[in-house]
Amino acid sequence: MITVGEAWQRIEDALPDYGVEDVAVEEAAGRVLRAAVGAERDQPPFDRVMMDGIALRRTGARRLRVQGTQHAGDPPLELAEDTSCIEIMTGAALPSGADTIVPVERIRHVDGHAELEEGYEPEPGRFIHRRGSDHVAGTGLLQAGCLLGAPEVAVLASQGLATVRAGRRPPTAVVSTGNELVPAGSPVAAHQIRLSNGPAILSSLLGHGHAGSRHAHLPDEPEVMRERLTALLDEFPVLLLSGGVSKGKADYVPGIMAELGVEVIFHRVSQRPGKPMWFGARGATLVFALPGNPVSALVCFRRYVLPALLRGAGYSGPTAETAMLGADYEFRAPLTCFLPVRAETDAAGSLVAIPAPTNTSGDFTGLAGTTGFVELERERERFAAGTPVALHRWRLY
Amino acid sequence: MITVGEAWQRIEDALPDYGVEDVAVEEAAGRVLRAAVGAERDQPPFDRVMMDGIALRRTGARRLRVQGTQHAGDPPLELAEDTSCIEIMTGAALPSGADTIVPVERIRHVDGHAELEEGYEPEPGRFIHRRGSDHVAGTGLLQAGCLLGAPEVAVLASQGLATVRAGRRPPTAVVSTGNELVPAGSPVAAHQIRLSNGPAILSSLLGHGHAGSRHAHLPDEPEVMRERLTALLDEFPVLLLSGGVSKGKADYVPGIMAELGVEVIFHRVSQRPGKPMWFGARGATLVFALPGNPVSALVCFRRYVLPALLRGAGYSGPTAETAMLGADYEFRAPLTCFLPVRAETDAAGSLVAIPAPTNTSGDFTGLAGTTGFVELERERERFAAGTPVALHRWRLY
Repeated sequence: MITVGEAWQRIEDALPDYGVEDVAVEEAAGRVLRAAVGAERDQPPFDRVMMDGIALRRTGARRLRVQGTQHAGDPPLELAEDTSCIEIMTGAALPSGADTIVPVERIRHVDGHAELEEGYEPEPGRFIHRRGSDHVAGTGLLQAGCLLGAPEVAVLASQGLATVRAGRRPPTAVVSTGNELVPAGSPVAAHQIRLSNGPAILSSLLGHGHAGSRHAHLPDEPEVMRERLTALLDEFPVLLLSGGVSKGKADYVPGIMAELGVEVIFHRVSQRPGKPMWFGARGATLVFALPGNPVSALVCFRRYVLPALLRGAGYSGPTAETAMLGADYEFRAPLTCFLPVRAETDAAGSLVAIPAPTNTSGDFTGLAGTTGFVELERERERFAAGTPVALHRWRLY
Repeated sequence: MITVGEAWQRIEDALPDYGVEDVAVEEAAGRVLRAAVGAERDQPPFDRVMMDGIALRRTGARRLRVQGTQHAGDPPLELAEDTSCIEIMTGAALPSGADTIVPVERIRHVDGHAELEEGYEPEPGRFIHRRGSDHVAGTGLLQAGCLLGAPEVAVLASQGLATVRAGRRPPTAVVSTGNELVPAGSPVAAHQIRLSNGPAILSSLLGHGHAGSRHAHLPDEPEVMRERLTALLDEFPVLLLSGGVSKGKADYVPGIMAELGVEVIFHRVSQRPGKPMWFGARGATLVFALPGNPVSALVCFRRYVLPALLRGAGYSGPTAETAMLGADYEFRAPLTCFLPVRAETDAAGSLVAIPAPTNTSGDFTGLAGTTGFVELERERERFAAGTPVALHRWRLY
């Protein structure tokens, strides 16, 4: 059995690049930027006046004719002569020919003229934020691989971009296997189980922008499975099965995958839940087969599949945080433990992850309201409250 | 000038309920649940066997004929007689007529019979997880007002629900005002500014699911503004303007709103950035007018507008976290300070918010890569590193 780290490494190694597409900046929130963005022009784009006052050419004159007024956003005026000045507002461009700003507090307006305060010596260049002093045209503003949110979209738009090059998010086929699964709308017998993994995983994929993803429910009939999976493998770049990888009928999935030319990359990972997880590929088409237990399926989906799809879209940042375990926890198996938690920041600003273990009866309703799960290393058995642990939020971005 | 808290209170008071709609569970991620959900049936829905072994009726017989095998997911068999047993798998339903489980380790299979280990006394009821012992049918599983993610969708689907009652997310008209704003694709003169607030805010609205939201750019011409805003007020339940509320031409917006029957609820808030913010309503139609400065616009949008829309959709949870300030910060004005930060958890699990102040020149490219902003109370001037502060993430949900 391989470790969680090895499993992730093998997935990363098998991962194709899902390519890029141009997206309107208004629709770019949640997308991964694929081409670095540089500054369209200098910032400030002109010599920017930082005070309300007058603009003049420093020659020594202390009484200057007010030639006009220039507001922020106005094209720059031209200073007529050494003995004139231009009334100027914060944020305006320095008038051409001017080199000095005198703040409004240092002048007196008399008969259409501005008189400098006695003893005040204006200083050329002061109160002027020089063109390009924040950055010059071409300076890198956004790097490829970052996730775009409202501030990044503001930066993109401010550089004159209407579209942005973003990573593609592959549509994914979500396949539930099992005759015992009864979809919503049909009556359910006591020994039957409601189909829930497929809708839950599909909702997360759609919520993470994987438009075109679809759910299919296959019976435990090898003939039907072979036929339907053949079609899905041709249609989708990613298949995500739940159920059919542990025991009994479970063995159908690995066997059928082999028949269909999907090469197994790993089967079984030293983790709980999720030990029977299976992963394979046929060329660039990836197949994740997750255990049917709802907690296992959701945990494996979030621990492996969502981050893989995000990496395939070009994202280069972290996909987990560090939280502080909120209570002692013991886990004796020599496996990595994925423990559902409610995480929230406490009054001091610590991100506290309170264990919300699901019970063994198959009741996973306790997952409602959880934030995600923490990952407890397999080398240890006891985890004291306060231990820093990796937190994977159900919602990745 | 009112405080940040008062401003938010007045917005909450003016907020309509945006109503509900039925949404397919597969599309419910990120939605607010509006009707509580109870358990469809008992959990477990049957007396569930917790060990591999045999099921029998406890009478004292120690050699039992193996009548058949029952797997998880099979309908329960019926025990034929006191001297027979049924081979049973973990997760299967207790066969009818049986009351006792003997684990596989305690039996020996001989000639189609199971013999109990010498001295082993089976205990009726042990290794049986009784029907309804986790919860009974009708037990509340999800409360109205919660945000739905993958685990909640799994719970919804497991209760046989194909659709869910969710809060509506109103479409919003985003209006940029200002002749100096040049949209992407048009050449920009040095003294002009790229239009960026509208696309950034629209991208966030669309990313938060406010489908049907739209952006319009209005010139500083009262006639045109009046006409366009009249139409937008009739079409959209929420208007969100940026620019036109501070000085000079700015005064157009409050004046035109008054003419159009929009009653002012507040104008100016004791905060930086965002002091000139204006808010009004005409019946159930809300108008937020944010300052044109990009940092102000984004901060006010996230501090007030996004949470208001989420509340209007029925959400009852928190919209901010508590982070630990990552560096000393001083802010001398008697205003609430909204300070952009990069927030990440450190190795100990603290959520550290590192100030990323934007400079005064209007260069907001430093916002790229920030997580959101922290809110520093107006009563203080000095905030030491380590101080707990409210963190508002750009992405709210």
